[in-house]
Amino acid sequence: MSTSMAELVKRDVVLANRILARENVIDDFGHVSLRNPENPHRYFLARSRSPELVTLDDVMEFTLEGEPIDQRGRPMYSERAIHGCIFMARPEINAVSHFHARSVLPFTVCDEPLKPLFHMASVIGERVPVWDSQPEFGDTDMLVNTLPMGHSLAKAMGSGLAVLIRGHGAVVAGESIRNMVMSSVYLKENAELVLQARALGKPLYYLTPGEVEKTGAMLRSQLASDRAWDYYVARSGFRGM
Amino acid sequence: MSTSMAELVKRDVVLANRILARENVIDDFGHVSLRNPENPHRYFLARSRSPELVTLDDVMEFTLEGEPIDQRGRPMYSERAIHGCIFMARPEINAVSHFHARSVLPFTVCDEPLKPLFHMASVIGERVPVWDSQPEFGDTDMLVNTLPMGHSLAKAMGSGLAVLIRGHGAVVAGESIRNMVMSSVYLKENAELVLQARALGKPLYYLTPGEVEKTGAMLRSQLASDRAWDYYVARSGFRGM
Amino acid sequence: MSTSMAELVKRDVVLANRILARENVIDDFGHVSLRNPENPHRYFLARSRSPELVTLDDVMEFTLEGEPIDQRGRPMYSERAIHGCIFMARPEINAVSHFHARSVLPFTVCDEPLKPLFHMASVIGERVPVWDSQPEFGDTDMLVNTLPMGHSLAKAMGSGLAVLIRGHGAVVAGESIRNMVMSSVYLKENAELVLQARALGKPLYYLTPGEVEKTGAMLRSQLASDRAWDYYVARSGFRGM
Amino acid sequence: MSTSMAELVKRDVVLANRILARENVIDDFGHVSLRNPENPHRYFLARSRSPELVTLDDVMEFTLEGEPIDQRGRPMYSERAIHGCIFMARPEINAVSHFHARSVLPFTVCDEPLKPLFHMASVIGERVPVWDSQPEFGDTDMLVNTLPMGHSLAKAMGSGLAVLIRGHGAVVAGESIRNMVMSSVYLKENAELVLQARALGKPLYYLTPGEVEKTGAMLRSQLASDRAWDYYVARSGFRGM
Repeated sequence: MSTSMAELVKRDVVLANRILARENVIDDFGHVSLRNPENPHRYFLARSRSPELVTLDDVMEFTLEGEPIDQRGRPMYSERAIHGCIFMARPEINAVSHFHARSVLPFTVCDEPLKPLFHMASVIGERVPVWDSQPEFGDTDMLVNTLPMGHSLAKAMGSGLAVLIRGHGAVVAGESIRNMVMSSVYLKENAELVLQARALGKPLYYLTPGEVEKTGAMLRSQLASDRAWDYYVARSGFRGM
Repeated sequence: MSTSMAELVKRDVVLANRILARENVIDDFGHVSLRNPENPHRYFLARSRSPELVTLDDVMEFTLEGEPIDQRGRPMYSERAIHGCIFMARPEINAVSHFHARSVLPFTVCDEPLKPLFHMASVIGERVPVWDSQPEFGDTDMLVNTLPMGHSLAKAMGSGLAVLIRGHGAVVAGESIRNMVMSSVYLKENAELVLQARALGKPLYYLTPGEVEKTGAMLRSQLASDRAWDYYVARSGFRGM
Repeated sequence: MSTSMAELVKRDVVLANRILARENVIDDFGHVSLRNPENPHRYFLARSRSPELVTLDDVMEFTLEGEPIDQRGRPMYSERAIHGCIFMARPEINAVSHFHARSVLPFTVCDEPLKPLFHMASVIGERVPVWDSQPEFGDTDMLVNTLPMGHSLAKAMGSGLAVLIRGHGAVVAGESIRNMVMSSVYLKENAELVLQARALGKPLYYLTPGEVEKTGAMLRSQLASDRAWDYYVARSGFRGM
Repeated sequence: MSTSMAELVKRDVVLANRILARENVIDDFGHVSLRNPENPHRYFLARSRSPELVTLDDVMEFTLEGEPIDQRGRPMYSERAIHGCIFMARPEINAVSHFHARSVLPFTVCDEPLKPLFHMASVIGERVPVWDSQPEFGDTDMLVNTLPMGHSLAKAMGSGLAVLIRGHGAVVAGESIRNMVMSSVYLKENAELVLQARALGKPLYYLTPGEVEKTGAMLRSQLASDRAWDYYVARSGFRGM
């Protein structure tokens, strides 16, 4: 992989971190990864640092098993298994985010599935599954910090683009950085919307399966994708290094 | 139409975009149009771009059928039919906004009409109708992107100044840019208020029809209209090009 | 009255406007007045302008009946009767605010009195009355824009420091600008708190009458009053003219 | 104690004040203390001033009984007993915060215990007790401003790290400034989360005791603690004096 291309992908890792921090999807904890486009068995992820503060020098390369290629003493996120295990299970996925946006958490501790209530949320799929560490792993420190946990989580995600974690947060995957960012934002937004709507009672009309499919495809098109991306980039204030 | 007047109207399109973004009415998607004051069969609308980022060069002119006068390769919003069909049906309307403010969405998916609960919201009219694409058009990508859909939406709006779209958002119309902006802001604010009020139970006292009429007229007066406009313009930070 | 003292009081009018805008108590509409300390039959109030934008040149002097002393063509708020009628009825009151903070509105349209739920809110008194223009004045444009309406509102306020207006907003009075500002902020904050608390059900413990009295007195003391005031002034960003 | 070390601890007091203001945990009232590391019978606390405005010159030293070492005319917080009494009762505690974050207040006036609903909140312990001044002290000005009140509050906190005060706020303790800050932030965040979750009904799954213990220990580790701290410091904008 040429140095310049590696730099471009690392730059995108920084950009995705900054965007998700700016859009209030991610806070002090949480992380974002991009698969190495020249070596699908590796991915890029920041060293242990809050997304809002990540810079180019913080971006490290890892094997899918979570081993650093060139650690140089940098501390590492302990939940690398989230990223590696999804990249292993899903060859078409090239970007993964993990975050604790508060609005998604109620859907992990109450008996109510998270489904798209407005068109923009069609990018999260018909229904977002919830993974719980308890049944399989018992009392833990609640981090997805082993490969067995990562595999179990990836299995729960199935062929979808998002999965929630009980009492913890969410994981979102995308074919591209743009899709992953947009789905991360609208997963959070849709959860907020459903909570807000409950002031009027249970919503009567979620999107139909046909609407989810058609609207999701439309939002992943070049026209919609570019509009959202330009907006996110401009608001992030990120101007390269 | 003289160049200078066209420039002034285009500048207003940019201003309205920036104001509605600043006031959190509009976000990455959504758009704002103004009818051409010298040719009522045409209107101005930005190219496909998030309202917060729109600049003068982005403003394009369209026929009411949505055909660009001078496209110059610029990508276009696919929901132009919203604007054109309302301008066709309502000669007195000169400004239209479309947005996805979250607070209005619950009123499109629950069985609760949106009505003015405080005096400032009298500008939205007695009761805001909801349009749903399903009964007439079935499973779609949920965009109002054909003339038949636009006509159906305009019909649902009737002689009012606002209409909601199920699982999608809202459309607001005004005789002037000032009225349209104020109604857009207070449609969102009133929806938030009703949701908030529900913490105490169903509101007992909405505005009476007489209050809606008298207060709406007062708020469209020069004195009230100027005060709101100066506030919005100052907060938008927009200083021309 | 010496010019310099008039200037100081006018400056305080600007400051109070800016503070209440900064603390999200007041928005595009709403206003703040201070009684003339050298002539209790007159008060100062801005010309018709949003509080966030008010400057020294906007501050006008009025008789208690709402007549301008030196209008110089400046447009005037139409609700001057709120201020004048409270100053007439309450000689000990020297500062009045009127605003539409959303959180207080549910308490004007639902059957739930607004009472202090936490100690800081003791400054609003044991229970805030609600005034409704309908029974006495019928369908109006909902503004308190005549002396009879102002007198009726002042009567509803009684000897208290705050009154709510059905479907409209709130009025807060204080012996000093500091008391009025603090009570305005905590009226809004307490309303937000009660609405938020309702997620857990009806609150079981409001402040007792004895607590309201003792805590209110403590918060109007020099020590507490100074701390809040310095905070508000610093955050307002207002540095004189 | 060397001057330079005293200066470092005082600087940390300022930093903790600024961080908790920036993270919206603390507002115009509330305060933060650090025990003197060279004399455990004394602690540092700002003079009577809003946390957002505290500077190095405002930091005073006190005996555990709340007597100032070198007052120099500076006004003092009247609730010093909160800090002194916890430092007396808990030798392992070196940092204490007191604040009125709105989201914790509902848990002091409704019949619902505050417990960690997501992993980050494990730092507040299994269940946060509520202290009420009424049963023991009757109608007061609701301040914890005497040693008997402070002792009673410290007793209610027991061996935990947080205690709520009915109709008033919260107190959080930590072995270090870092732990105290993180627990203060996540106490507030968890309270917000529980309130939000109630839109879907009563949460079914709080953290288990085993999860609280293991996750709490993990979050107090160097790796997690450093990440949060760097984030808070960067966001505070505080760059020394």
